Amino acid sequence: MAVDDGGHVTDAALRARYGEADARWRGPWNDTIATMLAHRSVRRFAAGDIDDDTLSALIAAAQSASTSSNLQSWSVVAVRDPARKRQLRALAADQAFIEAAPVVLVWLADFSRAQRIAEDEGASLAAAELVESTIVGVVDAALAAQNALIAAESLGLGGVYIGAMRNRPDEVAALLELPPRAFAVFGLALGHPDPADRAGVKPRLPQAAVLHHERYDGSRVSEHLDAQERTLDAYNASQGRRLSWRQTVLRRLRDYANLSGREHLRAALRRRGLPSE
Amino acid sequence: MAVDDGGHVTDAALRARYGEADARWRGPWNDTIATMLAHRSVRRFAAGDIDDDTLSALIAAAQSASTSSNLQSWSVVAVRDPARKRQLRALAADQAFIEAAPVVLVWLADFSRAQRIAEDEGASLAAAELVESTIVGVVDAALAAQNALIAAESLGLGGVYIGAMRNRPDEVAALLELPPRAFAVFGLALGHPDPADRAGVKPRLPQAAVLHHERYDGSRVSEHLDAQERTLDAYNASQGRRLSWRQTVLRRLRDYANLSGREHLRAALRRRGLPSE
Repeated sequence: MAVDDGGHVTDAALRARYGEADARWRGPWNDTIATMLAHRSVRRFAAGDIDDDTLSALIAAAQSASTSSNLQSWSVVAVRDPARKRQLRALAADQAFIEAAPVVLVWLADFSRAQRIAEDEGASLAAAELVESTIVGVVDAALAAQNALIAAESLGLGGVYIGAMRNRPDEVAALLELPPRAFAVFGLALGHPDPADRAGVKPRLPQAAVLHHERYDGSRVSEHLDAQERTLDAYNASQGRRLSWRQTVLRRLRDYANLSGREHLRAALRRRGLPSE
Repeated sequence: MAVDDGGHVTDAALRARYGEADARWRGPWNDTIATMLAHRSVRRFAAGDIDDDTLSALIAAAQSASTSSNLQSWSVVAVRDPARKRQLRALAADQAFIEAAPVVLVWLADFSRAQRIAEDEGASLAAAELVESTIVGVVDAALAAQNALIAAESLGLGGVYIGAMRNRPDEVAALLELPPRAFAVFGLALGHPDPADRAGVKPRLPQAAVLHHERYDGSRVSEHLDAQERTLDAYNASQGRRLSWRQTVLRRLRDYANLSGREHLRAALRRRGLPSE
């Protein structure tokens, strides 16, 4: 996608992301922003591997992301072996794209290097027991992974995050032979998008719902929820689906019925050496 | 920065990021990857605002990031008012760049919209009480923020994340009038980099330390820690500093002495309506 040619590219990208109502403004534009605006989750892959040089470029992008206090409290395991991908799939809600993707990156919050430093120096690692440190590791992993995904998309690759990597954390840790103080936060299936895949750019809440100026303003939340319902209805209809956004949110959050084991995450984090005290 | 001209640009970028030892491979290259590799934290700003159109582009990039189950469980507060920036600075370790930046974006894990939906439908929001949901909100906010930062850097802007936004969470929430179930995960100071700023690209661990194949391999961790110590020493010397990476890690994690209040984060999260059960 080229840079803004008189607004047409921008307009199309904004319409896809926000629907008609919100697509009036016109910001600066370049290939990087175009890549981001065009993001869609890719769950169907064409043939073709991701070679080591490409993977190295993605990880260099990931390592270039900010990291809290330069702790670099993350790592990643690249899984390509078909048997291991099959096992990961079984542990992560049996989602077929995990096996279909040429590479599954499993992103870790990882304080095991810090643990090693503490052991070498005979020091304790008391702060690693706190939810603050778990959040530091989770944020570090997320910033790194997002750089890797955007870098991949800039090269014409595509992928989807896998939250279900938290469904059975002990078994994921055993499969990937994670050391103490390392925890799989999420996966990222990557590959060459199947050109026949019809999944598109998913519309989001109006920008005014998430962007607040000086102080949080929730006064128009009903209007924003209605707008999201409408634009997502239109998108879902184009995909042959009916699915209320409000019901999606409630189904996920009202009880533990759709958490697939993640209701036990606090105990699993403690066993992994990342307690949330 | 242009695309790879015979390897020279790539080599320079990799040498800055990894030091001499690790800069042998050569992956694919484009402007987006070059932007990411060139990332450095910017804490000194030249004159110049970030206008509303630019801010809208950054937030559109942020909203284009993946979000768990399409929950969109994040929001952001843009702070430009000098008095409010001064107050934020006082709450976040008195770091001068918070006041100096034309815009400070405060990124929230935000389940307040989900709370509104639950109230409208007379439903409970039991799963929002779990550390799983706190992690979902934190990851959503981090993926969004990283898109915004990379978009900003692609436009020649620069910035730095502010973890100290978690030092005094209740007061940050009061200042920004956050609703229940919203929590400031981190800030991001953004602006035009001061051309006189000498802070450069910070070297990271060798790629082999963070990238594992098929299963976690910690067998070479001592070697990797030594390599990080050496490359960071060289960087710090160029900045007129002496600072051991191992000691940085220990100082942050061995006890609560340098947490600036974040040892109480679990209780603050509970008060904000994001308990980590």
